[in-house]
Amino acid sequence: MTTAAHPFVERNRDRLLQELMDFLRIPSISTLPEHKGDVRRAAQFVAAALRDARLENIEIIETARHPLVYADWLHAPGKPTVLCYGHYDVQPPDPLELWESPPFEPSIRGGNLYARGAADDKGQMYMHIKAVQALMELHAGKLPVNVKFLIEGEEEVGGESISKYVPANQDKLRADVALVSDTALYADGIPTLCVGLRGLVYTEIEAAGPARDLHSGLYGGAAPNAVYGLIELLAKAKDSNGRIRIPGLYDRVQAPAPEEKASWASLPFDQDAFLHHEVGATALTGEAEFSVLERIWARPTLEVHGIAGGFTAAGAKTVIPAKATAKVSLRLVPDQDPEQIIRAYRDWVAANTPAGIRTEVKVLSSSPGVLVNPAQPAIQIAAKAFSDILGRPTVFTRSGGSIPIVGEFAQHLKIPTILMGFGLPDDGLHSPNEKYRISNYYSGILTIAHFFERYGSAS
Amino acid sequence: MTTAAHPFVERNRDRLLQELMDFLRIPSISTLPEHKGDVRRAAQFVAAALRDARLENIEIIETARHPLVYADWLHAPGKPTVLCYGHYDVQPPDPLELWESPPFEPSIRGGNLYARGAADDKGQMYMHIKAVQALMELHAGKLPVNVKFLIEGEEEVGGESISKYVPANQDKLRADVALVSDTALYADGIPTLCVGLRGLVYTEIEAAGPARDLHSGLYGGAAPNAVYGLIELLAKAKDSNGRIRIPGLYDRVQAPAPEEKASWASLPFDQDAFLHHEVGATALTGEAEFSVLERIWARPTLEVHGIAGGFTAAGAKTVIPAKATAKVSLRLVPDQDPEQIIRAYRDWVAANTPAGIRTEVKVLSSSPGVLVNPAQPAIQIAAKAFSDILGRPTVFTRSGGSIPIVGEFAQHLKIPTILMGFGLPDDGLHSPNEKYRISNYYSGILTIAHFFERYGSAS
Repeated sequence: MTTAAHPFVERNRDRLLQELMDFLRIPSISTLPEHKGDVRRAAQFVAAALRDARLENIEIIETARHPLVYADWLHAPGKPTVLCYGHYDVQPPDPLELWESPPFEPSIRGGNLYARGAADDKGQMYMHIKAVQALMELHAGKLPVNVKFLIEGEEEVGGESISKYVPANQDKLRADVALVSDTALYADGIPTLCVGLRGLVYTEIEAAGPARDLHSGLYGGAAPNAVYGLIELLAKAKDSNGRIRIPGLYDRVQAPAPEEKASWASLPFDQDAFLHHEVGATALTGEAEFSVLERIWARPTLEVHGIAGGFTAAGAKTVIPAKATAKVSLRLVPDQDPEQIIRAYRDWVAANTPAGIRTEVKVLSSSPGVLVNPAQPAIQIAAKAFSDILGRPTVFTRSGGSIPIVGEFAQHLKIPTILMGFGLPDDGLHSPNEKYRISNYYSGILTIAHFFERYGSAS
Repeated sequence: MTTAAHPFVERNRDRLLQELMDFLRIPSISTLPEHKGDVRRAAQFVAAALRDARLENIEIIETARHPLVYADWLHAPGKPTVLCYGHYDVQPPDPLELWESPPFEPSIRGGNLYARGAADDKGQMYMHIKAVQALMELHAGKLPVNVKFLIEGEEEVGGESISKYVPANQDKLRADVALVSDTALYADGIPTLCVGLRGLVYTEIEAAGPARDLHSGLYGGAAPNAVYGLIELLAKAKDSNGRIRIPGLYDRVQAPAPEEKASWASLPFDQDAFLHHEVGATALTGEAEFSVLERIWARPTLEVHGIAGGFTAAGAKTVIPAKATAKVSLRLVPDQDPEQIIRAYRDWVAANTPAGIRTEVKVLSSSPGVLVNPAQPAIQIAAKAFSDILGRPTVFTRSGGSIPIVGEFAQHLKIPTILMGFGLPDDGLHSPNEKYRISNYYSGILTIAHFFERYGSAS
């Protein structure tokens, strides 16, 4: 099966790659204040690409932090409207020394494009724009469906601005379905729709002990140590089996339905390859009574993303540190309420802070987990379009990651979201040497264009 | 009671202070490779000061790392020989933002001289040189005792070079007693000799989990986290009462003699002031069944001096970190054998490293604890000289800090060490805003000169 977009992609292979590489050269790291100007440049790049694709009503919408980009094309009366979402911001690239080519100088090796944001999410959101452009060119400025684009620059920092914008602009954003490409194929060549996401509560804990760093000889044995106090606290968060010890945390956790678990069991999951080629550690960890897929897709987790305190330069310094901080997140599964979890977490920190230590918790972001019903007609059409292009039946999976906007669309716009991603499990999102498979970039453009075609002709 | 050095100190008050400030301006941070040249400059400064004091046979002795400085004056036949030891290197000044004046721009406030190294140990070792200079001036180039100086630049990084030099140069360094000023008065105005020191084993633990930083959404729940693994390991090192859980660690720990404990109980120790004015935390911690002085002077401790791993910049990054490191030390009490402790510690790390994590231990330095018998004649003479100058009876204390050279002198030169320090408990050694009380700088010069006088005339 083919799509009318095929000739466009064939004709423009080089240009499509060069444009994406230009996009990837912009270090739009949303969490780092020194890159604020780069984030804006990326927004302007997106707006220009939307213009090239003949979209209309293009806006760069100012927010408290990084701009949103909006565009639409609404000249297909009687046809459904697809709200295309993506993000143009990226994670910080550190640790820099582990990159084989610089993170913001895209490099092609072995059929992959290496750059920060290649898969997450610049390479994927750009496919939406190119799919529209392909159809516009082939159909003399017409599309088979109506489309709206809403693209943000704060996805990697909690998406605060878009989560204010969506409820305040429900009419403007009205659509039948949202389309998001920020997930991965289950494996290369397997068309995959993601129907479940975990939520995320991201926090910072600051611990304070003595008023200043103390000499460990003169005070060691009687003075509290902020680093050790934080270690003692955090070690209590999970048992050795990975089960979180925060009271109430599992209250609303539901097991996946038996059919869903059965379909996961039928996926070609190779635990050895997962351990050795993806994780690269000596052993997997976590709740042994759950399968690995269930652990990463359908169980809450607590992770310490970073910790800092005391003397960490080369050599020796014998201080009892006055302060320490850790970045700690909880991944939530559908039905868990972020507000209730935050309360339970704060109570747990307060109750478990060791003597002599003061702790303060800051919540940097929070979002609930999401489940999408795969029986929704738009999801079924997307599954068919995907199968048409890749030539295999579409599988339904979950992702352990978080895309908070999916919950916002469900809550405020009352629409389901198609999570149609073209990444691969080993793309290295948030890691050094992030990559995107170039063949999947092209097949993504084709699949999205074909979904628009099928969705338009189904109605 | 007075000393012949009084007029010298009175006449040279300003000059003595300016010279010390010049010395403190040299950032001789021995642990940081970028300050290697500064450490050498400090050695040259010391050599020049020894020359000004009319000492002889001055040498800057090259070592594998930072130079030693030697000098002597041996023209008092029949009189005892004092080996004066000190160190001209300093701790790193970070965290810099907590200093009220820059660490290497000495600043006088409230009768104190603020600078890194003011008390530890530049301000104190310089007193030895000035005491010699005072007596030389007053006695036409003669001293009441023979003196040798051996001053190092690696005290803050484990003292490896001097610990090789001393056993290889036993004849050259032969003396009757060593004199070290690197400790504190028990309280301002109380003459204090320290007769016990803790030893130190300083280590670094590196933990590795996944091969690269992983996305915590996609892998969280099944992949090991190097930061969390290190947290789990370190949290097992002590119970909530501060007792170290490393098997065998307490095997050779001796309680202080009843008389020593009784004398400590008679010291004016104000636990509230210690907590609020020195430590500045909400509570003291550690082994509740021991007094605070016993905890810091006569009990082993384990401290984490610093920890680093994962994402620690501003904002949010959802990684499962691949690596983490911690600086961990053990303070040892006399009779504990550093080699046995290192073996026990390594075994404990290996046995307690969580699944999926690999750990590596590096030992940066090690030294045993030391006890000096206060009944030694030289110690008794020092106690009298101290009382003479400060006008109160001398007290005998221990310090929880470590001065490894004291053990080396005992082992290789078979001499006791007089630990005659003039710091104060709140001097902030190793902390921001380290200071040295200027009046104690002057009374230190007088006391040391007077000790030389008394020691010379006693024999």
